[in-house]
Amino acid sequence: MSTLKDVAKECGLSVTTVSRALNNRGYISSEAHEKIQAAMKKLNYQPNEIARSLSKQSSKSIGVIMPYIDQPFFSRLLNYLELEADKKGYILYVFCSKAYAAKEEEYLEICKRHRVAGIILCTDAVNIDKFASVSVPIISLEREISYAAESIVCDNEAGGKMVAEHLYRQGCRKLLYLNPGHWTGMQSDSRGISFRRQGEQMGMQVKEYCATWEEHKRLDYHKTILEVLEKNPDADGIFCNGDAMALQTIQICHRKGIDIPGQVRIVGYDDAQLAELSWPPLTTVHQPIREMAEKAIESVDRLCNGRKIAAKVLLPVTLVIRETA
Amino acid sequence: MSTLKDVAKECGLSVTTVSRALNNRGYISSEAHEKIQAAMKKLNYQPNEIARSLSKQSSKSIGVIMPYIDQPFFSRLLNYLELEADKKGYILYVFCSKAYAAKEEEYLEICKRHRVAGIILCTDAVNIDKFASVSVPIISLEREISYAAESIVCDNEAGGKMVAEHLYRQGCRKLLYLNPGHWTGMQSDSRGISFRRQGEQMGMQVKEYCATWEEHKRLDYHKTILEVLEKNPDADGIFCNGDAMALQTIQICHRKGIDIPGQVRIVGYDDAQLAELSWPPLTTVHQPIREMAEKAIESVDRLCNGRKIAAKVLLPVTLVIRETA
Repeated sequence: MSTLKDVAKECGLSVTTVSRALNNRGYISSEAHEKIQAAMKKLNYQPNEIARSLSKQSSKSIGVIMPYIDQPFFSRLLNYLELEADKKGYILYVFCSKAYAAKEEEYLEICKRHRVAGIILCTDAVNIDKFASVSVPIISLEREISYAAESIVCDNEAGGKMVAEHLYRQGCRKLLYLNPGHWTGMQSDSRGISFRRQGEQMGMQVKEYCATWEEHKRLDYHKTILEVLEKNPDADGIFCNGDAMALQTIQICHRKGIDIPGQVRIVGYDDAQLAELSWPPLTTVHQPIREMAEKAIESVDRLCNGRKIAAKVLLPVTLVIRETA
Repeated sequence: MSTLKDVAKECGLSVTTVSRALNNRGYISSEAHEKIQAAMKKLNYQPNEIARSLSKQSSKSIGVIMPYIDQPFFSRLLNYLELEADKKGYILYVFCSKAYAAKEEEYLEICKRHRVAGIILCTDAVNIDKFASVSVPIISLEREISYAAESIVCDNEAGGKMVAEHLYRQGCRKLLYLNPGHWTGMQSDSRGISFRRQGEQMGMQVKEYCATWEEHKRLDYHKTILEVLEKNPDADGIFCNGDAMALQTIQICHRKGIDIPGQVRIVGYDDAQLAELSWPPLTTVHQPIREMAEKAIESVDRLCNGRKIAAKVLLPVTLVIRETA
């Protein structure tokens, strides 16, 4: 592979001059520019991004740490993060922790060693204290972390409330809340809390159930859903905290001959691609995933340019009414 | 941020000695080792991966270029690529081209400049000639490219054939093949070709339809599917080249009151998460996505270690029989 030195030799200029031309620094004559271009082409010279990063002690890269990549919420988020990063000239290092705290710590170390410009953290592991020592700015998504430079969260409280109100307007009075998992301090838990509070305030009965950790690992909640439906044959409205769980609830209703939305109305959360593809198409809460991604990349970029960012950003959610409720 | 020099100064050793200790090169006394560890801890020193990469002129990183991240096939693939890369100590740079050729070329340039150890290419853009000049080894997935170090493809021909055979055994005689898109030279086209050949050999009628490019961009094939079903009211078996398209076909059948599998049987392709979540659960061809990811990362690693790899790897597919056929 040819080097900057080779290019300089080929066109009879100093390494400093060639380097200045490549980095658009100082005055270089157009004649010199042409010579350099010709030499680069002839030698098939590729500027070395690694050397550039070293001289700046940071790189135009962003580390993204997610618990799962293949869940619809996260794959859509990653898609938009990539799109926005590319627009601003950053590349993404992508890490998947499978929600293991030890893995997340390891990935944070790797990000530090690679001198990333920022880390976007969307994890759900419990043990996060050790992250506090990270010197790189962290933008946390859907989680409030005290040492994050910025926490970007969706308005989960409003989300839970609007589901309760919608089910009430549709005539439901006996509600179930199904949670794929329950972890202290997670933003998504506040959906259930506000759903319950609003439902009870409106005079409805609200019962709450949670899948097991084992089920959540396999993303297969059939066992819990089946038990809950058998225990509550008179429930007329179900709020599932996540679209995949809602689709599994729909499957079980079909199998048991329960009519949707005639006998029971079902609402999901996320508005992933599968919400549109289910039968009947799923009524669900739309999370502003694209806006979350835009905001996160913009904030890393602002910090890199020495500009200020907000400590917390709250994004609004909307109810997408399809055919299950 | 403290440097190697600071660490050396702190423990009263030469920079060379500290560098040798960190890279496990040559003999270093255990006393010196302890001193270095203590100094690193005290100064919160982070080894600089960028500097390491520069001295080796390559980094333990792999570039992944995909057309879409948020399609189930690709998000599952990326999930496994990350898992396998992590096992072997590589980090992933992830790029999403949205199937634009110009974007793919740009990403290949970026990968080169970052001195990646290898590039995993799973694109479907047509113009790929310019990639031939890439000096980094390319592993291509689901596409045979002459200059790729290795092409890993699934046995699409066998996939199409087994769908035709299965529908025949289920009593179907009038088949439809629905393709989300048609691009010359794509591996996935051979599914349709072998489906048709096998179907006709068995004496069945096989008609072929293709969605528009616009529909494929939006991943919404409803218009084409509806037209096809209206033109072919007597079709009894439908093979959709992709699970999302199969789920949309199921939705339209529900809406038109067509019983699945009573009146028409439907088979998808991929075995994405949504295949399990549809109603009825989707019969589909399972692609060995995990094995593809394992093989791709293993091959990059073998090349990095100067070992040989196969020019072409063909992975078997299997039919997963659920409830739509």
